[in-house]
Amino acid sequence: MKIGLLGCGNVGSAFVKLLIDNGDSIKEKIGENLEIAKVLVRDTKRERDPWIDRSLLTTDAQSLVTDPDIDIVVEVIGDVQPSKELIETSLRNGKSVVTANKALLAEHYFEIEELAEEVGRDVFFEAAVAGGIPLIRSLRVSLVGERLSRVTGIVNGTTNYILTRMHEDSLAFDEALAMAQKLGYAEADPRADLEGYDAAAKAAILSSIAFGMKVRFQDVLCEGITNVSAHDVEFARRHGFVIKLIAECARLDFEGEQRLSVRVFPALLPATHPLSSVRDAFNAIFVEGEAVGELMFYGRGAGGLPTASAVMGDVIDAAQNLHFGSTERRLRRSEVNVVPVEALESNFYIALEVADQPGVLAQVATVFGECGVSIASMEQSGLGEEARLVFLTHPAKERAMISTIDVLSQLEPVREIHRYLRVIEG
Amino acid sequence: MKIGLLGCGNVGSAFVKLLIDNGDSIKEKIGENLEIAKVLVRDTKRERDPWIDRSLLTTDAQSLVTDPDIDIVVEVIGDVQPSKELIETSLRNGKSVVTANKALLAEHYFEIEELAEEVGRDVFFEAAVAGGIPLIRSLRVSLVGERLSRVTGIVNGTTNYILTRMHEDSLAFDEALAMAQKLGYAEADPRADLEGYDAAAKAAILSSIAFGMKVRFQDVLCEGITNVSAHDVEFARRHGFVIKLIAECARLDFEGEQRLSVRVFPALLPATHPLSSVRDAFNAIFVEGEAVGELMFYGRGAGGLPTASAVMGDVIDAAQNLHFGSTERRLRRSEVNVVPVEALESNFYIALEVADQPGVLAQVATVFGECGVSIASMEQSGLGEEARLVFLTHPAKERAMISTIDVLSQLEPVREIHRYLRVIEG
Repeated sequence: MKIGLLGCGNVGSAFVKLLIDNGDSIKEKIGENLEIAKVLVRDTKRERDPWIDRSLLTTDAQSLVTDPDIDIVVEVIGDVQPSKELIETSLRNGKSVVTANKALLAEHYFEIEELAEEVGRDVFFEAAVAGGIPLIRSLRVSLVGERLSRVTGIVNGTTNYILTRMHEDSLAFDEALAMAQKLGYAEADPRADLEGYDAAAKAAILSSIAFGMKVRFQDVLCEGITNVSAHDVEFARRHGFVIKLIAECARLDFEGEQRLSVRVFPALLPATHPLSSVRDAFNAIFVEGEAVGELMFYGRGAGGLPTASAVMGDVIDAAQNLHFGSTERRLRRSEVNVVPVEALESNFYIALEVADQPGVLAQVATVFGECGVSIASMEQSGLGEEARLVFLTHPAKERAMISTIDVLSQLEPVREIHRYLRVIEG
Repeated sequence: MKIGLLGCGNVGSAFVKLLIDNGDSIKEKIGENLEIAKVLVRDTKRERDPWIDRSLLTTDAQSLVTDPDIDIVVEVIGDVQPSKELIETSLRNGKSVVTANKALLAEHYFEIEELAEEVGRDVFFEAAVAGGIPLIRSLRVSLVGERLSRVTGIVNGTTNYILTRMHEDSLAFDEALAMAQKLGYAEADPRADLEGYDAAAKAAILSSIAFGMKVRFQDVLCEGITNVSAHDVEFARRHGFVIKLIAECARLDFEGEQRLSVRVFPALLPATHPLSSVRDAFNAIFVEGEAVGELMFYGRGAGGLPTASAVMGDVIDAAQNLHFGSTERRLRRSEVNVVPVEALESNFYIALEVADQPGVLAQVATVFGECGVSIASMEQSGLGEEARLVFLTHPAKERAMISTIDVLSQLEPVREIHRYLRVIEG
């Protein structure tokens, strides 16, 4: 079986290394020889890892994806274009495709999947969500008969690393970000991670597969971690919580109809929650199903080698299907129907700064009550002229919380309202 | 697709329920209708769960496994015989087989697998190890290109429940066992669980798949938890450890050769180890690979519904393969070569009772030194006439530990030597 590799960055180069190191043992196990035929790069002159055979490098994408000798195309470029076109041309030329491209899949998954079915080839993408963790195949195959109710995950290593440093080393957000950048966990332009877009793309893919509905990036409600302060983290720690960036995909009954809620947001998790102990750049996904109960998958969500390992599993699966003339069967999917966020309910955490003068607390508390939000606990700390008020609420609708903030922001003594955070229960 | 069900106990009945509840959504997703055609039982008159269609019940095993209308046979009887023969007849009659029978697989996996390949059908057994956790397919497919170094698991819920109660409620072994029996976590005759045989069967299956070698039940070194005392648990807790029954499958370099060590034993794990937080009847499997790094799978390892969920995933996979005329490809396996246990190295915990008289400690410590075992820490507590000595050692060969105990048992002041436990490092 001949492989055409699109891209030779971190993941591409690790994939080549893995095939060199394990090719013989793979051949022994599956009885099939895997061989890299061509490697698409932007610049053939650039320095490469020593195990890259420079004679395979090419800048001619079209000749690779149309090469009749190539059986499987591995796409690890990462941008939406030109990857989409190259994958489509590969499929039309009878190749199976393995991709790690979450941004592409979160936008165009269903078109690509339909094309693959039409031409009778596979598109696999285990590496697109949670790196080396065998999650996609578990959801697609092992759990396909299961009625899942909820998938909750930590799927972005960069933000988890930053939040871990804030929790464990009491760093401010900026300090933790600088540390993540120094260690290569965060990119020079870290917005896609910090604003939750990377996690949102993964949430779209995950929920499509878990719930058999067509969920796209734009269906995901997305909040990042840039507003999480050292104060928030310190409060959480003192009260037995951990703040994590959560991707949550849930099936809910809404006005008698089954709908989905797919969201990415920073949340307070009880320290006893299985996801709370997921530290640094690790990923974990907590799956709840009616029959299977609770499952958790844990591992490295990024990095060249773990991601290349997931790509390798897909390549072998695709190779075996080509050998048999079979394909992974496409699952039928209905259009997604999302619950309006205002109707969702949870406990909330909210911090505000107010002028430290008599009667303010009563004034603020009255607003919560009038908007229908019941306060579970409250803490006040002095800041000189001002005071910081922190509230934990009982379950309330987002709608009620939004009006509470609206009204509070019009009160004269309220100086600043920090964005509220949701609290996930054990 | 028509299914013949062998056995209608806890798992069998849950499987029927699952198919009734989710059959429509499965059909929607995979485009295939799954239907139960016959159910083999010992007694057609016995009372059954209300969802069991009594007109499908039969006591005639042969007519089920040779029925030309049946496509897939699901075996959930559990004993080695008659299951082995029924599975073989099913395969010879062109049916694919899904089984949850770990005892059978740990003895006859390779014969059955060969027969399945010969007749071009599938044998799937996700439910045989760790219940509803999608572990087997992850190892067989997703991680097949990975060079795994170690698989460490908590794969027996009964013993994990007992050890959890001993740790958290300070119960004695007998009290915790009685509680497990009362709650249905332990059987009336609990030996297969307590002596580690159940975990050993699973370790044989796991290591066969993880390392591509033919590992059978008799290749697994097996120690149970019946000798773990409340004293041991209390010591472990005080020193930041948790005692767990561990199934450990490792690839080791032994005298320049790649060999396996497959063992089941109670061990002291640091409280920070990912497996330490696995409580009650939950299972978890920690997998270490060269490229993928550390992975963990966590979930319910037993119970009717979680096990039936794993069976369902396999049935759907088998149905899709039949539809395409393909099968899961058999992995080639070499004969197993096991490391002699005496040559294995670890840290040890050992407790002994000695006469409380001058000079005993020096005498005991001298034995450790002479046998080449270096003591890391020691604790003495008075018991009236006697004293209890507890040692934690530095890494030592099992061989050295065995001679230490041999010599100690001949010392006059030594009253009792409790079996030593291994210590697994973070």
